[in-house]
Amino acid sequence: MLLKENIPVKYVLGKIKTEVIVVSIYAIVVAVVYNTFHFTRISIPISVPAIMGTILSLLLAFRSNQAYDRWWEARTLWGAIVNDSRTLARQVLAFVEDPYQASEVEYFRERFIKRQVAWAYSLGQSLRKLSPLAGTEQLLTKEELDFARRYTNKPVALLELHADDLRIALKKGWINEYQQVHMEQTLTKLCDAMGGCERIKNTVFPVTYSLYIHFALVLFIALLPFGLIEFFGLAEIPLVIAIVVSLSLIEKMAIHLQDPFENKPTDTPVTSIARTIERDLRQMLKESHLADDSKRMERTEKNSKSEYFIL
Amino acid sequence: MLLKENIPVKYVLGKIKTEVIVVSIYAIVVAVVYNTFHFTRISIPISVPAIMGTILSLLLAFRSNQAYDRWWEARTLWGAIVNDSRTLARQVLAFVEDPYQASEVEYFRERFIKRQVAWAYSLGQSLRKLSPLAGTEQLLTKEELDFARRYTNKPVALLELHADDLRIALKKGWINEYQQVHMEQTLTKLCDAMGGCERIKNTVFPVTYSLYIHFALVLFIALLPFGLIEFFGLAEIPLVIAIVVSLSLIEKMAIHLQDPFENKPTDTPVTSIARTIERDLRQMLKESHLADDSKRMERTEKNSKSEYFIL
Amino acid sequence: MLLKENIPVKYVLGKIKTEVIVVSIYAIVVAVVYNTFHFTRISIPISVPAIMGTILSLLLAFRSNQAYDRWWEARTLWGAIVNDSRTLARQVLAFVEDPYQASEVEYFRERFIKRQVAWAYSLGQSLRKLSPLAGTEQLLTKEELDFARRYTNKPVALLELHADDLRIALKKGWINEYQQVHMEQTLTKLCDAMGGCERIKNTVFPVTYSLYIHFALVLFIALLPFGLIEFFGLAEIPLVIAIVVSLSLIEKMAIHLQDPFENKPTDTPVTSIARTIERDLRQMLKESHLADDSKRMERTEKNSKSEYFIL
Amino acid sequence: MLLKENIPVKYVLGKIKTEVIVVSIYAIVVAVVYNTFHFTRISIPISVPAIMGTILSLLLAFRSNQAYDRWWEARTLWGAIVNDSRTLARQVLAFVEDPYQASEVEYFRERFIKRQVAWAYSLGQSLRKLSPLAGTEQLLTKEELDFARRYTNKPVALLELHADDLRIALKKGWINEYQQVHMEQTLTKLCDAMGGCERIKNTVFPVTYSLYIHFALVLFIALLPFGLIEFFGLAEIPLVIAIVVSLSLIEKMAIHLQDPFENKPTDTPVTSIARTIERDLRQMLKESHLADDSKRMERTEKNSKSEYFIL
Amino acid sequence: MLLKENIPVKYVLGKIKTEVIVVSIYAIVVAVVYNTFHFTRISIPISVPAIMGTILSLLLAFRSNQAYDRWWEARTLWGAIVNDSRTLARQVLAFVEDPYQASEVEYFRERFIKRQVAWAYSLGQSLRKLSPLAGTEQLLTKEELDFARRYTNKPVALLELHADDLRIALKKGWINEYQQVHMEQTLTKLCDAMGGCERIKNTVFPVTYSLYIHFALVLFIALLPFGLIEFFGLAEIPLVIAIVVSLSLIEKMAIHLQDPFENKPTDTPVTSIARTIERDLRQMLKESHLADDSKRMERTEKNSKSEYFIL
Repeated sequence: MLLKENIPVKYVLGKIKTEVIVVSIYAIVVAVVYNTFHFTRISIPISVPAIMGTILSLLLAFRSNQAYDRWWEARTLWGAIVNDSRTLARQVLAFVEDPYQASEVEYFRERFIKRQVAWAYSLGQSLRKLSPLAGTEQLLTKEELDFARRYTNKPVALLELHADDLRIALKKGWINEYQQVHMEQTLTKLCDAMGGCERIKNTVFPVTYSLYIHFALVLFIALLPFGLIEFFGLAEIPLVIAIVVSLSLIEKMAIHLQDPFENKPTDTPVTSIARTIERDLRQMLKESHLADDSKRMERTEKNSKSEYFIL
Repeated sequence: MLLKENIPVKYVLGKIKTEVIVVSIYAIVVAVVYNTFHFTRISIPISVPAIMGTILSLLLAFRSNQAYDRWWEARTLWGAIVNDSRTLARQVLAFVEDPYQASEVEYFRERFIKRQVAWAYSLGQSLRKLSPLAGTEQLLTKEELDFARRYTNKPVALLELHADDLRIALKKGWINEYQQVHMEQTLTKLCDAMGGCERIKNTVFPVTYSLYIHFALVLFIALLPFGLIEFFGLAEIPLVIAIVVSLSLIEKMAIHLQDPFENKPTDTPVTSIARTIERDLRQMLKESHLADDSKRMERTEKNSKSEYFIL
Repeated sequence: MLLKENIPVKYVLGKIKTEVIVVSIYAIVVAVVYNTFHFTRISIPISVPAIMGTILSLLLAFRSNQAYDRWWEARTLWGAIVNDSRTLARQVLAFVEDPYQASEVEYFRERFIKRQVAWAYSLGQSLRKLSPLAGTEQLLTKEELDFARRYTNKPVALLELHADDLRIALKKGWINEYQQVHMEQTLTKLCDAMGGCERIKNTVFPVTYSLYIHFALVLFIALLPFGLIEFFGLAEIPLVIAIVVSLSLIEKMAIHLQDPFENKPTDTPVTSIARTIERDLRQMLKESHLADDSKRMERTEKNSKSEYFIL
Repeated sequence: MLLKENIPVKYVLGKIKTEVIVVSIYAIVVAVVYNTFHFTRISIPISVPAIMGTILSLLLAFRSNQAYDRWWEARTLWGAIVNDSRTLARQVLAFVEDPYQASEVEYFRERFIKRQVAWAYSLGQSLRKLSPLAGTEQLLTKEELDFARRYTNKPVALLELHADDLRIALKKGWINEYQQVHMEQTLTKLCDAMGGCERIKNTVFPVTYSLYIHFALVLFIALLPFGLIEFFGLAEIPLVIAIVVSLSLIEKMAIHLQDPFENKPTDTPVTSIARTIERDLRQMLKESHLADDSKRMERTEKNSKSEYFIL
Repeated sequence: MLLKENIPVKYVLGKIKTEVIVVSIYAIVVAVVYNTFHFTRISIPISVPAIMGTILSLLLAFRSNQAYDRWWEARTLWGAIVNDSRTLARQVLAFVEDPYQASEVEYFRERFIKRQVAWAYSLGQSLRKLSPLAGTEQLLTKEELDFARRYTNKPVALLELHADDLRIALKKGWINEYQQVHMEQTLTKLCDAMGGCERIKNTVFPVTYSLYIHFALVLFIALLPFGLIEFFGLAEIPLVIAIVVSLSLIEKMAIHLQDPFENKPTDTPVTSIARTIERDLRQMLKESHLADDSKRMERTEKNSKSEYFIL
């Protein structure tokens, strides 16, 4: 299972604590002023905030949609990475002919598949602006690590190593010409998925649109108590708080969803997905994976401790 | 025909029984209080719940849209599985050259196609968190079952067996190099469809959004009787119930549609689709399929009895 | 030209005759009661039906959108079938090398292309739940018909015959290995388009959503006359009828569009498209097509008489 | 540059002249009746037309969306035709090996590329129901023209000639087997784009939906002056005209966009795009293109004179 | 990192300076007239501008959506260009066999990869209507520059040089036949991305739609102060300004987003993306890139100085 079913409610509410406190005080002050001084002139017709609420809901719904699309595209790209990693491993195992059980071929297969696992971890970490090669030392040889370090974009370097290995395999006769080209196609798909993730990571959501919605939200909240005070009296306070909580939550969620590689609980679970890839690919290599897996998990836990938890 | 035309109305209403009873009592209490005590102050202007209803309809429509998209994508992925299974079987039959009607080649074809049927059943069952290999014992050899059991993800193992068989077929000269690569492409498409299903299964719909809509719904229902009581009097009670039934139904439907692999009547009919694949592929193998089919149906019926019925 | 420009207005209005009559009587009764007995208490504020109308329009617009998407996807799939049929015929003519103008090769070409025409007719008819092989007797040999009859899904059988013919052509040296694989790809695209049509045909649109909209429509119509009577008096009657006609029409249209293979005037014109395929492919075969076409048209006309007319 | 930046405002306003005149008279009559006879009973609450305006805007926005999608798809298909034409020409130049600078190969290349230019013109003209081969006489040989004339669908015939030329090139050893199959793929993409255009051309937008919106628009305009007369008095007249102009314009635009191959100023600029293709392909052929281009432009201008101008 | 996190607020506000000043004066005049002359008849019911605001928000939201789609498609196309450039370089390095470390092959590789970098710069500049070959003199040979200058569309010329180089490489035996066809496919993908950018650049957004929205916006602003004056008095002035600022900003943003290649701060950062491509491809060539990079940056800075800054 890739994802925890729920984000802790406490975590979610923690995110909007400030907003709730400010709005509560504001709603109470309005109610007190109205009731103490019978300053009824401050009431405004309820249709003003009601129609603003309609507009706001529309805009929030549209924006959630676009943010959701970014998040879902990111998730789909990582789904494609899972598929293509499995496909690549399957091709390495089924294409490479190994009649004499040569240890050289065995080694080639293992290196290739472990490098693919390293690629997935490295891409996830570089998207999150963490050290891209951390934790891949067990999966790569010293030469590969040295080669990758020379590059700004480490996953690009690993794909180049993949392609280079295919060239060698063709020269040694382990694969034929069609198989080389076909596996290169799988590398191209991995390259496309990587580029897609970078595009989402590096392209900011249009700022004006977000600002406009936030501004409309503040205006709406400012007018809301005056619209409700006449009909609801003191009951206005919980009503205002409830409406503000739900609107703020939905705005916050859109903000989180629109940037799916930011080490937040709602982002794409890249480490968890990379772990699934490692599990499947190691089982294909017939390794006793479980012991190793728990070890790795501990390590990952350590270096991500309290920084983020998976959605 | 893949799907039953209708979900039993009783089943659908059963899902919202609790909501209907609670709301009925609530609506009656409001009407009684209003009429008995002539406590008219509790009436609120009808525009408040009316505008809330507009907002709610908008949000429910947007959410149904997104849930519908997930459900339709799941259905499309299983449609692709049907297509690719037929394509794979067609390729196994038309690509594999068998000049001497060798029983070895015959056996290869049968094993390959039956394994593909097993793959479809196994994927469906693992998506529903049932035992993935149950019911595939007739379709797989003992070796294949043993191989697959070693894997956490059984369908991945079966695809690897497919790929391995292609390698052997190439070595024996039953297929040529282009055909191997081309059939591998079909395996890749199956692998992609499988990964797509896992992505939908393992990615939860953003929780906050659902909560927000549910919260808005409860607030709307709480205010509705007070808005209607002045104009409609006792006629308010059936009106409130009718509105609540329809809104609850549409919310429940969105919840069901957004998780299309959960053993519910509205989910993707994976078993039924797998059965269609079995029927078409067995007919391609020229097997007398009908007898066998009814037997299998009984068996499937047995182990899914009263757990779910197909939409 | 594939489609008639207009559906007869009479046909369209015929579909909603009952609704119009019932609503007219209802609107007249309300007006008479109001005017005769001066029973003005039955008037309700116009904002109630007006806001319900907004909600309803939103939901109908969303639903029309989804129904339109299904219909357009079906149309796009048949567009793809046209393209792939032309591509397949072009490949059969240009790939198959025929240096000695051998009659065997000529026969192979003709059989292949006519079988493709038969496939298109057969798919269209099986989607409409008509006899799938009716009208294809002229296009297929007796052996092919016998082969296909053994299958539940006839178009799958015809694609298998295509693939088998390619195998034979490769063995005889009429095509080379790359050409076989490339034409197989075209078969795969046809198989995908077929599977897409079956998916749309066999997957019902979520029932609850439709029910909810219909229920909201009935409620709206029931309240409408009471909302309009005060301001419009007797002019309420034509206004109510006009609004009901337009809303019912749009609901009916969504119902028709969402099931695009049901022998209705608005469904996908599969027979007409298949006829276009036949015309183009026969011209590629250099057959004098026109005489034959008119004959076929008559026949098709006969067996579809008054059952449906093309949109 | 493919498209003129603006449609002449006069052209646009010309399209809605009748509507504007009728509505102006109507608005003036209402104002005169109201002011002269102090017949104030005809005023209706402003909320009636206001809410109808909301509904109408929603429906118009949805419909514009769908019409815009058709138009954009048509534009995208012609964009694909540009891409694939360039790709095809590039492949003809780079794939065909010509060691002895044989004039036969030179001629083959020129014929192929000019035929592709002819294909683009011919497709554009047949989509607009103009004579498909007009203006392609310079680009095709007499044999090719005779071949194409036998076909109902001329562009299909030209693609067949392309495919046939590839067969000959393979036989003569100018291209190898992989290159033939690869160029055939480009032909398939051209065939798909052509089929997509025909699909959009031949499929009418659901009539009922358009009728419903038009009906709602008329009803809205009929009620609008009565809603505005009380508050705005004579200022009602320009307000009504302004609102009608904008709503009619947006409805007209949707009608134009939804049929993108109808010789209207807003349709897909097929001739202009075909000219771009000709320019690029002739430059690839190293022809002195400019002189010829201006000649052709004149000619095209002549036979399209005052029939349409490009958006 | 590809993009600056924020557009300077000053830049954004600068764009709507005129609008804000005009509206401020207008709002003040209305307030003064109302308060000084107690000319209360000018107040209109708040529901008129409120409902217009709803319509306007809907239309703006829809339009932002479509503009956002164009912008996102442009960004996606440039993302694809990044991916395909990396893929092409990887293929040049891994496909080209170079057993004797021949300097000729080395030179071929370097020329190919640098030409790809030049292609990216050249496409970006021609989309922005700048001199397409400026700044590519270091990356291309004199012959290549001369060849490209003959073409109207420079990037098309560079792709033709790519294809020609592949032909030569095949002839010299550096790549095999499958590799040539496979790399040609990558060229086709680059050609498609280029065509997609040209399509977005050269196709104007439907003018009427924009005009309609702008007209509705002006009408709304004209009526707004009269709707707010009664309830808010002088507080109307900041409220009107605030609403106008946010609506104008969102309209401006849509206008910017819909034309993503216009040298504006919100357009696609083509130069910045091309620089990323150069960095990655030079590192693949094992060049000491950093020195060179800073030099180029200066140069680019110079010739784009104060013309635009990246979003």
